[in-house]
Amino acid sequence: MGSTEDLDYPQIIVQYSSGFLVSKVMFTACELGVFDLLLESGEPLSSGSIAACLDTSTTGMERLLEACVGLKLLAVEVTQKGALYRNTEISNIYLTKSSPKSQYHMMMYYSNTVYSCWQHLTEAVREGRNQYERTFGISSKDPFGAMYRSEEEMSKFMAGQNSVWSICGRDVLAAFDLSSFTQIYDLGGGGGALAREYVSLYPNSTVTIYDLPKVVQVAKEQFVSPEERQIAFHEGDFFNDSIPEAELYILSKILHDWDDDKCKQLLAKVYKVCKPGGGVLLVESLLNEDKSGPLETQLYSMNMLVQTEGKERTAAEYSKLLEAGGFGAIQVKRTGKLYDAVLGRK
Amino acid sequence: MGSTEDLDYPQIIVQYSSGFLVSKVMFTACELGVFDLLLESGEPLSSGSIAACLDTSTTGMERLLEACVGLKLLAVEVTQKGALYRNTEISNIYLTKSSPKSQYHMMMYYSNTVYSCWQHLTEAVREGRNQYERTFGISSKDPFGAMYRSEEEMSKFMAGQNSVWSICGRDVLAAFDLSSFTQIYDLGGGGGALAREYVSLYPNSTVTIYDLPKVVQVAKEQFVSPEERQIAFHEGDFFNDSIPEAELYILSKILHDWDDDKCKQLLAKVYKVCKPGGGVLLVESLLNEDKSGPLETQLYSMNMLVQTEGKERTAAEYSKLLEAGGFGAIQVKRTGKLYDAVLGRK
Repeated sequence: MGSTEDLDYPQIIVQYSSGFLVSKVMFTACELGVFDLLLESGEPLSSGSIAACLDTSTTGMERLLEACVGLKLLAVEVTQKGALYRNTEISNIYLTKSSPKSQYHMMMYYSNTVYSCWQHLTEAVREGRNQYERTFGISSKDPFGAMYRSEEEMSKFMAGQNSVWSICGRDVLAAFDLSSFTQIYDLGGGGGALAREYVSLYPNSTVTIYDLPKVVQVAKEQFVSPEERQIAFHEGDFFNDSIPEAELYILSKILHDWDDDKCKQLLAKVYKVCKPGGGVLLVESLLNEDKSGPLETQLYSMNMLVQTEGKERTAAEYSKLLEAGGFGAIQVKRTGKLYDAVLGRK
Repeated sequence: MGSTEDLDYPQIIVQYSSGFLVSKVMFTACELGVFDLLLESGEPLSSGSIAACLDTSTTGMERLLEACVGLKLLAVEVTQKGALYRNTEISNIYLTKSSPKSQYHMMMYYSNTVYSCWQHLTEAVREGRNQYERTFGISSKDPFGAMYRSEEEMSKFMAGQNSVWSICGRDVLAAFDLSSFTQIYDLGGGGGALAREYVSLYPNSTVTIYDLPKVVQVAKEQFVSPEERQIAFHEGDFFNDSIPEAELYILSKILHDWDDDKCKQLLAKVYKVCKPGGGVLLVESLLNEDKSGPLETQLYSMNMLVQTEGKERTAAEYSKLLEAGGFGAIQVKRTGKLYDAVLGRK
């Protein structure tokens, strides 16, 4: 930027304009099962075979595959039989449904729910509030009522959150040595992927997922097996129902959904029941103190505007909230990935 | 890609997932007039002042401005009065409405029309056809009937196309020495920005914009002044009505809207009326011969699937179409920007 050549042609503006095209190409290739088919087939396939197997048009599939090559999500080899496509390593690991690190469900949540809500970003900025009413015709007063408007939507959201922890979970839990804690409550722990990472990293622990009754029901049915004995459940609404005593409370991507008052109210309530010597672990995407970045976190903060009542915050802002709730000895650890960790002690 | 570290954390997948957030942040800042206000004010402004002037929420504007800083579309200075924002040079030139190189209208067309159509990319690939019916409830049989479904939509589209030529027009017209031609027809020349570039580059020429009557009417009302005496108009449908004799025909972003048969039909018709020694200039975004890129063109080809009956093509594919129409002595010139030029002679 700044040189005459760059100013003569706005490369970054062209690139930003195409951002949604890039997202949607990847999302659609996931949705249609391109990466799953190429993983299963074990050999490179032509666009014709892929279109036939996935029951799509050839003209559409051909172009989708070419764009995926441009994005380095697929590799192509031109042979006597024409162009043959295969997954790149990154697609095998992250874009196939069966991979333990699959981001498939997050892609689907982004592609359908989030993409639709962002159609109304301008109105969100104008009004300073979420856009469920415009997007889905449902009240915006209760964001989780809107997000969990059907069991299907709730299940998609939970699966999406679980994929995040398959790539970011270990780092946020290993940010501090938490091995002295054995009784943990994961407030709003949803689909349980973070709880699973926790008990794997700290084998002497038991993690109780505290969430709404309908969330707990779906978690038990779809995400956590009864054989995972170190994971327990507690049904409740942590704003309105009592929270049991424990040594460590995890609030993972919870505070970013709410305004400062509700955050302080929740933290004060947690402080009250927390055992002396215990603590609270916040897992959030931290903004730089001057809010100059990271870009992903700035964008997620806009998404909090579009979808919730909250925002992303700096480490200092989270520290203030923790102190207002009674917690002290606050430690902050940035992981370099999407989510970071902040620990407060009672 | 490929190193263990990269595979451990899918940076490109995170980035691609956020592509639509990036697009929408830029589009919304344009739509709300952030860049216009900062250009006019002549001094850096606080988020509070910007929100007040543009009649938006403070909480939304604050985050929008921070994200624009992350995207380098704005610069921030932290002063005693708090954070003050100003445009970067690139925003002044390309994102303000009043700039001669403004991309504002293209942004608005992308943000509203194209973004909505791409909600249905998966269906477009499945069905191999455009998505006007799902997106806007209008028949997909006649893409330009759908694109020009109201005068407002048509005018937005024409303004958007005009912004493209303000940054790419000169390069495609200077790709070949066209100074020997004096009578030019720009078939589907719409809002006239390319015609204007043409007569500025080749002062002895007259360019006649041949387009549908309703397009010509809006072009005269909104885009081309009667004082621009080297620009004329001709009302007609180039598939169904006659095309007058001329020395050079420009087909700028026309063939990419149609399938091979319709392209050949149109080129043969043009060949017939073209003066001997004359030619046809195709202005299109060229795919590499092996279709491995450029990425923007691959993405635009997907957009042709979503919005038209055509696709982007390689230089060899355009040459074949030209030859099928009768043209010879074909020359290809890549500009390094979004649009390239192919010249065929009679």
